[in-house]
Amino acid sequence: MTTPLTDLARRLPGLRLLTDAGDLEHYGRDWTRRWTPAPLAIALPATIEEVQDIMRWANERHVAIVPSGGRTGLSGGAVAANGELVLSLARMNRVLGFDAVDRTLTVQPGIALEAVHTAAREHGLIYPVDFASRGSCSIGGNIATNAGGIRVIRYGNTREWIAGLKVVAGNGELLELNRGLVKNSSGYDFRHLLIGSEGTLGIVVEATLKLTNPPPSSQVMLLALPDLDALTQVFAAFRAKLSLQAFEFFTDVALKHVLANGAQRAIDGEHPYYVVTEFDAVDEASQERALEVFGHCVEKGWVSDGVVAQSEAQAAALWRLREGITESLVPYKPYKNDVSLRIGEVPAFLRVMPARLAQEYPQLEVVWYGHIGDGNLHINVLKPADMADADFIAQCERATKLLAATLKEHGGSISAEHGIGLVKRPYLESTRSVAEIALMRGVRKVFDPNGILNPGKVFVDA
Amino acid sequence: MTTPLTDLARRLPGLRLLTDAGDLEHYGRDWTRRWTPAPLAIALPATIEEVQDIMRWANERHVAIVPSGGRTGLSGGAVAANGELVLSLARMNRVLGFDAVDRTLTVQPGIALEAVHTAAREHGLIYPVDFASRGSCSIGGNIATNAGGIRVIRYGNTREWIAGLKVVAGNGELLELNRGLVKNSSGYDFRHLLIGSEGTLGIVVEATLKLTNPPPSSQVMLLALPDLDALTQVFAAFRAKLSLQAFEFFTDVALKHVLANGAQRAIDGEHPYYVVTEFDAVDEASQERALEVFGHCVEKGWVSDGVVAQSEAQAAALWRLREGITESLVPYKPYKNDVSLRIGEVPAFLRVMPARLAQEYPQLEVVWYGHIGDGNLHINVLKPADMADADFIAQCERATKLLAATLKEHGGSISAEHGIGLVKRPYLESTRSVAEIALMRGVRKVFDPNGILNPGKVFVDA
Repeated sequence: MTTPLTDLARRLPGLRLLTDAGDLEHYGRDWTRRWTPAPLAIALPATIEEVQDIMRWANERHVAIVPSGGRTGLSGGAVAANGELVLSLARMNRVLGFDAVDRTLTVQPGIALEAVHTAAREHGLIYPVDFASRGSCSIGGNIATNAGGIRVIRYGNTREWIAGLKVVAGNGELLELNRGLVKNSSGYDFRHLLIGSEGTLGIVVEATLKLTNPPPSSQVMLLALPDLDALTQVFAAFRAKLSLQAFEFFTDVALKHVLANGAQRAIDGEHPYYVVTEFDAVDEASQERALEVFGHCVEKGWVSDGVVAQSEAQAAALWRLREGITESLVPYKPYKNDVSLRIGEVPAFLRVMPARLAQEYPQLEVVWYGHIGDGNLHINVLKPADMADADFIAQCERATKLLAATLKEHGGSISAEHGIGLVKRPYLESTRSVAEIALMRGVRKVFDPNGILNPGKVFVDA
Repeated sequence: MTTPLTDLARRLPGLRLLTDAGDLEHYGRDWTRRWTPAPLAIALPATIEEVQDIMRWANERHVAIVPSGGRTGLSGGAVAANGELVLSLARMNRVLGFDAVDRTLTVQPGIALEAVHTAAREHGLIYPVDFASRGSCSIGGNIATNAGGIRVIRYGNTREWIAGLKVVAGNGELLELNRGLVKNSSGYDFRHLLIGSEGTLGIVVEATLKLTNPPPSSQVMLLALPDLDALTQVFAAFRAKLSLQAFEFFTDVALKHVLANGAQRAIDGEHPYYVVTEFDAVDEASQERALEVFGHCVEKGWVSDGVVAQSEAQAAALWRLREGITESLVPYKPYKNDVSLRIGEVPAFLRVMPARLAQEYPQLEVVWYGHIGDGNLHINVLKPADMADADFIAQCERATKLLAATLKEHGGSISAEHGIGLVKRPYLESTRSVAEIALMRGVRKVFDPNGILNPGKVFVDA
């Protein structure tokens, strides 16, 4: 009797298969680094047909498949720790076509986000979804988690930019979902069901992305805020009068770290909260309007101090105060959480959550920042130098339980943009009801009757 | 043994139930007027609990339910012709709340679209989805069909404006989908699955709608085009330079009807195609840019003539040439089709389809117009005065087969924004594959195991 892997190699003699220990480790994990990689092998198909053939083999031989992109995920969605076959889309990474009238770019799933940006710019357009891992993450992975990032307030999540998807479902069928149409009211929109399903329903093998005109010239402002209520007041005032491209928040604790890491202080004095905002500034009128809104917020006592960037260099320096936070925390091996709330609910949540954490886990320093204009908070818990890794993870997981319970009280979500994967799976019920999770299991069973695709991610099959 | 209806009345003594012949006829049909209404009764619940109780009763007694909004649909999605209980949301029509920070309006499903517009304006904001049936259609029905309309090119379909949905699923469970969050990557996004599912998965009992700032001031232009290729050339040129609010198309045949119905001619001479476009014109610079694009198109030979509205009255007069078409065709009892293609594919499709129809059905006059910026064409077939109704419908249905086959060749959709309902059901396979339809049946079975909700709409249960 042949092993499943020998069988696969025999059926698909042209398929690139890797089984070296180094490859198994490399392709078996993502950025979470919490699970020990243990895949059966790595398959690197070059065509849609090969992906389908692998899925047919997997269904016949009951081998689990982990679809794999850039593996920059932070939720363990692409981890293969249980003898799964990793199906890496890394070789399917080309631009397939550009349509000037429809303004769409058709790509293979393994292409890096940055290469999509480059291809769009070559046609004088932009693909507006963007975040720090752009050089390594793949568009297929972006689609699998409905990735967000820093411009969501203006452009929405990945979901908004998908005109069509080719997907190999768990049952091996190739689905051509929506085929680039703007309007299509012909039955259930499975494109949207697939987006954000973290590889548990199907494998994206081709995507048609919408592009758009580049944004107009913009202005960057840094604001210091005296208290939490000011956060939503300032946001509402700015959004009412300006066309926002970003509205980001961080605390004095986050500022401390980023300054220690070499960023330049831009506002003097002690302030508990900061906002970096960027907005359209096409002419003097819009610049004046921005100063008016700023003046109004100062007058109301919502803003204690502020700086408007006067040059591109200064704009970059202000942005560094926000964008440099992640890097400044790396030495502390942070445990990351990524949660969301309705925007208006953020102050109420921030009034209770940090205090609860401080009380229960006084040893842990917690750094808060995020995309406040989307109600999205990133929470980084720093490992004390004298605490063992396992001890730290255990404390953080207990802290996440507290976080999940508090989020539930405030109607929030345990995952804003990182996905559920393995990391958040124990907390899914804080965000989705038992009835919804039962429906998820049922829907998965329809697309993937044998439970082949990414089993154990998001939820455990019944 | 009690009848199911007696049983319902006994279980829910407070439920408003209508059984008069006039009510059965009124609530049993939509704007299609093709099926003879024959519902069991009409239930008008006032609360979510009553909707859930009705669904539990329906599951126990195996009574089919037709969810019912404003019944302005054009695809028979709200028709009750087989002894179903019509569950009308007409009494659940209130605004429940407004959130100034999140800029959301929470409403009951039976509220008319126009009332949503009014409520948004009271807060200085807009709900940007709009179409002619605004006074009668309900937001629940808009969600069920992912309704589009005239501003999709700027604002997208209904889907883009739904921050949260409360839904009673076919199995009776109350689902709270997404709860107003901007970012929420925590498992399958059933909100998007429900949108456009035409009442076959669940009943929307509450919706949280996103609002936005009103658009800037705009300019309206009418263009005459010499040929089909010009259509996409002009569109691409305008979209590259201007921020479009609308880009609508109609033919000389459509113009003939609307002029005969009292509209004023705005461009002299004979031209085969016309475009009405509206775009942001905030200042002189953007007005100049518009004239430059216009000049460029004339120079290229893509535009034969054009008019820029110089006043609001003239803008309205130009718009009437497009918006007055539907009304001008009413006397001809038109058979309506509503299809879509990728925008760039529209000219190729229009080169073959009208000719095919003219060849096969020389007696039928066909009027073409639509939202060309969305690849959406409305097709109105006019009934010859001397043709019997049944004969006309039969010819039109055969013509729709030809239409569906041609759409399939061009990668189009048999329903752009009206939905599938009963009218388009025979043609669903021209747009969706057999594998996709099988998945739809499976997903419906998960949400509605007994097949209670709107059976026979979109597809027939297995």
